[in-house]
Amino acid sequence: MTTLVFGHKSPDTDATLSAIVWAWYLTNRRGGDAEPRLLGEPNTEAAFVLKHWGFAKPAIIADVDAGQNVVIVDTNNPAELPPSINDANIMAIIDHHMLVGGLKTKAPINVVMRPLACTATVMHDIMGDDVAGLPTEIKGAMLSCILSDTLEFRSPTTTPHDRAVAEKLAADLGVSIPDLATKMFEAKSDVSAFSDAELLRMDSKEYNVAGKELRVSVLETTAPKIVLDRKASLMASMEGVAKEDGADQVLLFVVDILREEATLLVPNDLVKQMAEASFGCTVTGDTVVLPGIMSRKKQIIPALKL
Amino acid sequence: MTTLVFGHKSPDTDATLSAIVWAWYLTNRRGGDAEPRLLGEPNTEAAFVLKHWGFAKPAIIADVDAGQNVVIVDTNNPAELPPSINDANIMAIIDHHMLVGGLKTKAPINVVMRPLACTATVMHDIMGDDVAGLPTEIKGAMLSCILSDTLEFRSPTTTPHDRAVAEKLAADLGVSIPDLATKMFEAKSDVSAFSDAELLRMDSKEYNVAGKELRVSVLETTAPKIVLDRKASLMASMEGVAKEDGADQVLLFVVDILREEATLLVPNDLVKQMAEASFGCTVTGDTVVLPGIMSRKKQIIPALKL
Repeated sequence: MTTLVFGHKSPDTDATLSAIVWAWYLTNRRGGDAEPRLLGEPNTEAAFVLKHWGFAKPAIIADVDAGQNVVIVDTNNPAELPPSINDANIMAIIDHHMLVGGLKTKAPINVVMRPLACTATVMHDIMGDDVAGLPTEIKGAMLSCILSDTLEFRSPTTTPHDRAVAEKLAADLGVSIPDLATKMFEAKSDVSAFSDAELLRMDSKEYNVAGKELRVSVLETTAPKIVLDRKASLMASMEGVAKEDGADQVLLFVVDILREEATLLVPNDLVKQMAEASFGCTVTGDTVVLPGIMSRKKQIIPALKL
Repeated sequence: MTTLVFGHKSPDTDATLSAIVWAWYLTNRRGGDAEPRLLGEPNTEAAFVLKHWGFAKPAIIADVDAGQNVVIVDTNNPAELPPSINDANIMAIIDHHMLVGGLKTKAPINVVMRPLACTATVMHDIMGDDVAGLPTEIKGAMLSCILSDTLEFRSPTTTPHDRAVAEKLAADLGVSIPDLATKMFEAKSDVSAFSDAELLRMDSKEYNVAGKELRVSVLETTAPKIVLDRKASLMASMEGVAKEDGADQVLLFVVDILREEATLLVPNDLVKQMAEASFGCTVTGDTVVLPGIMSRKKQIIPALKL
């Protein structure tokens, strides 16, 4: 049986490309038979990175069959995975997020989680000496994952090890990190084709904070104006999106990669109260700028309270 | 803050000694400050192994403080851990059991789980080149963990890798595996000092099977007669133990390490029905012999049904 390798339901560069990297590695270096899959449409940056390194877009699946062999990358959260995930035969998990609990297996499996910025860095370490012999496009995919998840080393999630691995890969490939990162961030910033609801769901994770079910959405961009010019209609769409997704509120953080700050949209009193309690700021209008805030995992989620 | 390293609530050799090994390693090779702890009285084999390699018995703790730094070894099951475990600061998990779900962290941590017979084998692999320079008692502890969990390579959980690691450690130490294993199994078989309730809980894990909450207990011994001579009073104690522990039924498998078979005690129709459905045997008396059955993880749990 072919093993399916996939990341979470909001396929960004790391979720998309690290699945491709691992499926390639299982097939070509571990004698396995594995293929990457997607659980949704890749974001514009991931789509650019696929094309840049010459990969076809993996097939999108809505669920997995019972007993299907799967490897999960870049998440350990059942809410971000196919509905039948616990009926599949989970063979391994490779991740770099907090432990959420909820995935179960019937037998011991391989799990590797490390407090690093990026799944591809964890894979790099598992591969060990095999890294040297990887083909260009696999090294390139790993480099792109690290640049994406670290926002070119600007995000506070970046560890010295992520940076060292990226710089080694770039040197091997003869690639300029600033050039590649600029192209990737431009692709990510090109969100004009998306509806408001699509933007709100593009890079979004659900969390329960003080009894409220929150959809915490982040848009990382080098052109925040494009998004902020649409703030009125984005805020108008929040209630509908929250309702459809069974959430109480959508929080949208527009992260300015170059200025290293986030702008939070403040559509109502709940968000105002939450922003002031969580970030010690004073909200006067329908947006608030949060200097230095770039990481949902490291800065936003740990701070959120009511 | 000192990091506490501990295994599960039924401290056998692997849970007890692998916690000692990892606390030693964190302190002496990773610049940390760690100490082992126990969540209960070690079994007779673990007590023998502690003395054999010259370790003091670690302190027993009933719970952990909120925010306490902890490393969990040899389990990932919150039911086998201190009640406040999810309020502690879980820093790492090293395990070789099926994924149960339920442990949560606020940030990404190190998790390494591998489908091997023994936690000490997983630690051996994490340590890599550091293994060569480990002191005698740490290598000895790791060897004992592997011999214990594999029942001297008889258990079907044994992988070629566990065996190779044990043989390498034994060769380094100039230790005879059969001699050490015989002493360990004799210590494990010396259960005369324990009450019936203590025997039923000694190496016991809870599982839900077909809506029944089961306490699945295993006694591995080279002298099954000592236990089976007490079968009437053991069966009489089952109802009380089950009730106290919130379970529907206790299943006691007496594993004969040398004959490589298990004897299941059959106190009532529920256990009879379960034995016949699970193992395809015919139960005629108050015990049934299950040839080849040695491993709860690999053979008993996957088979159990009603």
